[in-house]
Amino acid sequence: MADTLIQNMMTAIEGELQSQINSLNDKPTLQLYEMLTYHMGWSGDNANESSKGKRIRPLLLILCSASRGPDYDWHKAIQGGAAVELIHNFSLIHDDIEDRSDKRRNRPTVWRKWGIPQAINAGDALYALSNLAASDLIFNNPKDVVIKTSRIFHNTCLDLTRGQYMDMFFEKIDTQTLDDYWRMVAYKTSALISACAEIGSILAGSDVNEQEVYRQFGHYLGLAFQIKDDILGIWGNETKTGKSTLNDLYTRKKTLPVIFGIQNGGAFAKRWNQGNITPEEIPDMANELIKEGGLLYAEESVDKMSDMAVKFLNIMSLSGEVGDSMFELIEQLLKREA
Amino acid sequence: MADTLIQNMMTAIEGELQSQINSLNDKPTLQLYEMLTYHMGWSGDNANESSKGKRIRPLLLILCSASRGPDYDWHKAIQGGAAVELIHNFSLIHDDIEDRSDKRRNRPTVWRKWGIPQAINAGDALYALSNLAASDLIFNNPKDVVIKTSRIFHNTCLDLTRGQYMDMFFEKIDTQTLDDYWRMVAYKTSALISACAEIGSILAGSDVNEQEVYRQFGHYLGLAFQIKDDILGIWGNETKTGKSTLNDLYTRKKTLPVIFGIQNGGAFAKRWNQGNITPEEIPDMANELIKEGGLLYAEESVDKMSDMAVKFLNIMSLSGEVGDSMFELIEQLLKREA
Repeated sequence: MADTLIQNMMTAIEGELQSQINSLNDKPTLQLYEMLTYHMGWSGDNANESSKGKRIRPLLLILCSASRGPDYDWHKAIQGGAAVELIHNFSLIHDDIEDRSDKRRNRPTVWRKWGIPQAINAGDALYALSNLAASDLIFNNPKDVVIKTSRIFHNTCLDLTRGQYMDMFFEKIDTQTLDDYWRMVAYKTSALISACAEIGSILAGSDVNEQEVYRQFGHYLGLAFQIKDDILGIWGNETKTGKSTLNDLYTRKKTLPVIFGIQNGGAFAKRWNQGNITPEEIPDMANELIKEGGLLYAEESVDKMSDMAVKFLNIMSLSGEVGDSMFELIEQLLKREA
Repeated sequence: MADTLIQNMMTAIEGELQSQINSLNDKPTLQLYEMLTYHMGWSGDNANESSKGKRIRPLLLILCSASRGPDYDWHKAIQGGAAVELIHNFSLIHDDIEDRSDKRRNRPTVWRKWGIPQAINAGDALYALSNLAASDLIFNNPKDVVIKTSRIFHNTCLDLTRGQYMDMFFEKIDTQTLDDYWRMVAYKTSALISACAEIGSILAGSDVNEQEVYRQFGHYLGLAFQIKDDILGIWGNETKTGKSTLNDLYTRKKTLPVIFGIQNGGAFAKRWNQGNITPEEIPDMANELIKEGGLLYAEESVDKMSDMAVKFLNIMSLSGEVGDSMFELIEQLLKREA
């Protein structure tokens, strides 16, 4: 049952995304359109199911809009779903340039294929399209509601740039603290996931107290999601399969386990501070970080944040198909192996 | 009298811009805030009057809002003015990266000072701030009006990316036509100037017919403004003062006079097609283009577009201080020497 609802939502999301991006499907901007359909995973070399994203954010937004009962038809929230997925993808295109990442979902990144100038502009186009999608909510929702959700949406985009600024800034300094880390991921990852939950609930007519519950649920879910990502970045499939140049230890990303290790001041910190880690050293360094407690600390943090998210989720007293789907989505986010 | 009104408006614009950007004036994002205040011309080395932009777009928006008579207080449109100036500056930060421009208003560009990754993100932050400014119009204007102006605003941002895409695309091909040029500048320059006029009039309560008059006025004004820019790019002060590496002939920008020269198929086209033009050759090439009629064609185009703009302006039957100020602004745009 839950599978069917999620499947229906995913189909609707994909259709809406295509319809929004289709406004650039015009002769004078055809290549720009192709850059976007390529990035979204619909076209170009090796376009298949896995080259699309998981569409987690629109699914969360729409599930939250459906979670307040049958009075609100979740189809009315679909442009909101498209807006958050487009903003997420805009930030991916720009992040890939900023981080000099060559691959995204196993395919060359937009900047690798079309160059940095066109990739910056393609990201900007996605941002503009996401604003238009957010304003399209007016077709099926009251004015007050759309004005409120648009404002949350724009504030969230500003938060993304705050987080990305801090992420890049911390890369260059040696004194990043755990506090800095939590603040950075709150902006960079949690803000958008939290906005999905909050916007979904507002569209469905929630009052201020309920909105706060959804917001907090999304906030902690986002933090748990990010730390899970940090764990996979060091101990995930890439390490197992030997693609060690993608490992966060190789790229020197200061994720939660790494900051823990640095602050621990043991053998891991000593080697880290000596400079770049070679692909051959990664398995030993990853093991050293386990020995020093970095993995355990990160796993406990995922659990703590997940527990907080579920605490807020329980206040919503979800049931039936929507409740099952919500727990399925959370499970998918936090138990994933890649 | 007109001077006083323009001066009052400029002071209000600058204050609103500072207040909008101030939301990033916070310890964890202090350097991001400094990048933006530097770019806006308020801080950093050599910050002075000339390092700020001319604030043409917000002035136009606010003048248009004032032009429908005393029933609308232009102060209510101030956040709209901030929004268009912020979006313009966002596009400048990204354009400078895309074009590899070292200088903007005689100071190093943001990417030259802070690197490409932080500059991309700083541009994104300005974009988010401009969206927030546009949504702040809700404080002093009716909901319907703000929903309408926001939509125009987002569509205009998409048009900017269309224009920038075409501009970069045309650089790489040899077959750009005059038609391509007109389409490109309609998106890249006219769209935003046209939106300023249209949004200003909508805020002041114009009906659909009036809105169209303002839109057309802005459209032709924007085209005239761009061609004037093209002329200055080849025959402006930079050539006179010998800063020839900034000359459009050196950077191979395909502006209106250049496309005219290429299509003319004479000595200019022959040399252009042979490849890069050295700084020493620029005076001769600029003269050759005059001989072949490229400057005349561009000047006639400015006149034609200006006449069209004034035709629509006359429909508005402006008078008094606002009318004087509007003509002063147009004069400033089209008779400038730099």
